[in-house]
Amino acid sequence: MRTLYHPSLNEMNLSTVLYALSDQIRLDIVKSLDENGEESCSAMEIPIPNSTLSHHYKVLRESGVTRTRLEGTQRLISLRYDDLNSRFPGVLPAVLQGLKNKKSPKSNA
Amino acid sequence: MRTLYHPSLNEMNLSTVLYALSDQIRLDIVKSLDENGEESCSAMEIPIPNSTLSHHYKVLRESGVTRTRLEGTQRLISLRYDDLNSRFPGVLPAVLQGLKNKKSPKSNA
Repeated sequence: MRTLYHPSLNEMNLSTVLYALSDQIRLDIVKSLDENGEESCSAMEIPIPNSTLSHHYKVLRESGVTRTRLEGTQRLISLRYDDLNSRFPGVLPAVLQGLKNKKSPKSNA
Repeated sequence: MRTLYHPSLNEMNLSTVLYALSDQIRLDIVKSLDENGEESCSAMEIPIPNSTLSHHYKVLRESGVTRTRLEGTQRLISLRYDDLNSRFPGVLPAVLQGLKNKKSPKSNA
């Protein structure tokens, strides 16, 4: 069976994790996984070509942000929330909060 | 006098800020500014060519992570800690903490 690479906690690198989170499509994927839990690649409604989407899933997985589980012909993806939060405490929660507060209040302009 | 672009709070974008923080050299600059406060470009001891360094300063400034102040022939750079923390609460503190904990404990391997 094919094995997909996932970094251990020690292999996770802060700049690599931040790079994985620095793209709006990848942030949309992370937000969806946070809200819905484990999802199959095909279930996520992200309107971009499959090949581009596969690239984004790979960047997320290889940085340690997500885990991909093969089940039959399906790829099931989940956030490695606890792993990331143990390795870089507070980074993922703050980013997820930032996604919720995406629209800045006009009063703070 | 030449004016350097700095985004307002409303113009700051999460993925752009995370991209600015996703490079090891830029993280080294951010760490140095956090530890030493405002610094002149020339005082920071980062062993890369000036042209490359200028590019990194620009990425940091245009994302909203740093402020550049011109004083005579000097460029003085500081972290926009409060601005960033008001726009994306917790992101910069968590990243700075992650830089301090860079070496992961062996016991967590």
